[in-house]
Amino acid sequence: MLNIPPKKILTAFRQILIKREFTEARAKQCAQIFTNNSVDGIYSHGVNRFASFIKMVDEGFVKPNNTPSLKSKNAGIEQWDGNLGAGPLNAMQATDTAISLSQQNGIGCVALSNTNHWMRGGAYGWHAAKKGFIFIGWTNTIANMPAWGAVDNRLGNNPLVLAVPFNDEAIVLDMAMSQYSFGSMELAKMKDEKLLVHGGYDTSGQLTKDPSEIIESKRPLPIGYWKGAGLSLLLDILATILSGGLSTNEISKNKIETGLSQVFIAIDISRLAHHSSIPNLIDNIINDYHQSATQDEKTNIMYPGERVLKTRKNNLANGIPVIKTIWEEILRL
Amino acid sequence: MLNIPPKKILTAFRQILIKREFTEARAKQCAQIFTNNSVDGIYSHGVNRFASFIKMVDEGFVKPNNTPSLKSKNAGIEQWDGNLGAGPLNAMQATDTAISLSQQNGIGCVALSNTNHWMRGGAYGWHAAKKGFIFIGWTNTIANMPAWGAVDNRLGNNPLVLAVPFNDEAIVLDMAMSQYSFGSMELAKMKDEKLLVHGGYDTSGQLTKDPSEIIESKRPLPIGYWKGAGLSLLLDILATILSGGLSTNEISKNKIETGLSQVFIAIDISRLAHHSSIPNLIDNIINDYHQSATQDEKTNIMYPGERVLKTRKNNLANGIPVIKTIWEEILRL
Repeated sequence: MLNIPPKKILTAFRQILIKREFTEARAKQCAQIFTNNSVDGIYSHGVNRFASFIKMVDEGFVKPNNTPSLKSKNAGIEQWDGNLGAGPLNAMQATDTAISLSQQNGIGCVALSNTNHWMRGGAYGWHAAKKGFIFIGWTNTIANMPAWGAVDNRLGNNPLVLAVPFNDEAIVLDMAMSQYSFGSMELAKMKDEKLLVHGGYDTSGQLTKDPSEIIESKRPLPIGYWKGAGLSLLLDILATILSGGLSTNEISKNKIETGLSQVFIAIDISRLAHHSSIPNLIDNIINDYHQSATQDEKTNIMYPGERVLKTRKNNLANGIPVIKTIWEEILRL
Repeated sequence: MLNIPPKKILTAFRQILIKREFTEARAKQCAQIFTNNSVDGIYSHGVNRFASFIKMVDEGFVKPNNTPSLKSKNAGIEQWDGNLGAGPLNAMQATDTAISLSQQNGIGCVALSNTNHWMRGGAYGWHAAKKGFIFIGWTNTIANMPAWGAVDNRLGNNPLVLAVPFNDEAIVLDMAMSQYSFGSMELAKMKDEKLLVHGGYDTSGQLTKDPSEIIESKRPLPIGYWKGAGLSLLLDILATILSGGLSTNEISKNKIETGLSQVFIAIDISRLAHHSSIPNLIDNIINDYHQSATQDEKTNIMYPGERVLKTRKNNLANGIPVIKTIWEEILRL
């Protein structure tokens, strides 16, 4: 494992993107998003994913300098075509547009069709919440999870992000509808570890904590069984009809995860009647939450995003831990 | 078990509400919501809950003729004070207001403080979606679920509702953040049945399917373990800060579940650029979903709300099944 300073990673990413003809400004912003995701400890959508992202660029699925174009506007809601641009750049622009819409309309919604993987959804939640806005967003994905009672994958894990400002930082929930991602199950398998809770079914239809068995059966478990499967379906329907884009079903026909549909909702809390009391309201909730009695002394009760702050501080001070072979692969790009 | 025609139940409810000084119109609407919930098979928030609702009226927690008042307005978002009126009537009015706001602003949001239990959240989803609108809504509740890793209840199960129009009816997801409600666990215990999947922890901290053990430990399981706990926390924070109302923590200090905070978001899809293709987009998704390969021949793959349509048809034809003692209790109100 290497420990690489964020600046060094940022520079490497930027240079690789410029080589792929991203404009200076776009290369810088895109490199920054991938670096921030890594600083925050979301390596699966940072350093560990960068080479796959570049492969999507090289194969023509991600168009380096395509930007979203407005398809339709109806006051607080706008539909944009992502024109298969870089997912993180499209998503960041959509987030900023939703923020502007919320400043004019109290609440704003951008639905984005024909875009690419946004990498870490939480990035847009942190971005909006640190600017003082509530953020609710989600994306559909390629099919990677069965309906409840089914054995074949027709649902996406469709990550959902909710974020609110908190203490100059944010509380950010970033959760896929599967209990575990295939990425984290591959990692557990590599380390020969069992999952903490049931993550899916084995090939005989029994719930299991063995990641290899779930990877083999291709039956990851939706969170809350039928509930997460239902929520995944609804998020896909909403993203598809709001954006007029592709559904999980249609995306999956291509085998390559591209042409996604996403939704970005922002709410301007600065103009709510009691807005000056909002920090106190959140403080009170979090203080109570932190007072939870735990099942044992080792357990820390953390709010969504709380661990990220610790990881961020650590990685900024000590460098980002990167697997040696992954860094070598990046340097060859 | 009795089978009672919906009209008979509606009339009984209406008369009982009028006895409590609900105006004619409000008694009729409130009775209709409770009846519809029962027709749709959600007995726990219909006939089986009506006596408790009347008790809340009799004890002064629910004010029969108090209606919401506008606290603040900022284009597409409005804050209302529910003035402790009847939860279902307040929620239905908030839904209609969110719909009107969405007609003017594309997307509309009503945040409601100081209200009472809305009974079945799905009722508002069905209402909005049948009128042709997307609906996203949630409520906080009294604390009834622990944070992840905790043993005491500081989170609500905070039901979330997502609904879209479909074939003159709707697809409606109505899900609490706990895997099972205490109501359904009490029912399973009464019938001496085990839960289908783990529903919580026993007093020694082990996951269990035995409802009695979970009722004893008071540790129901959040859907998706840490994920549902996180989503519950975020939904409470959002409901609290948007409405300027009480959080789960503050509600729980009163021991009585009153003074809730709720959010109602509507989106007008009739003015989206491609709106005439929306029914087709949804059809395609549901058709694909229904083609799922199942784990056995008995399994039916249903979308959220699909079973409701069957139950509704059956109950309209054959009457609503009501436990005899519950009906006798209602007749004494």
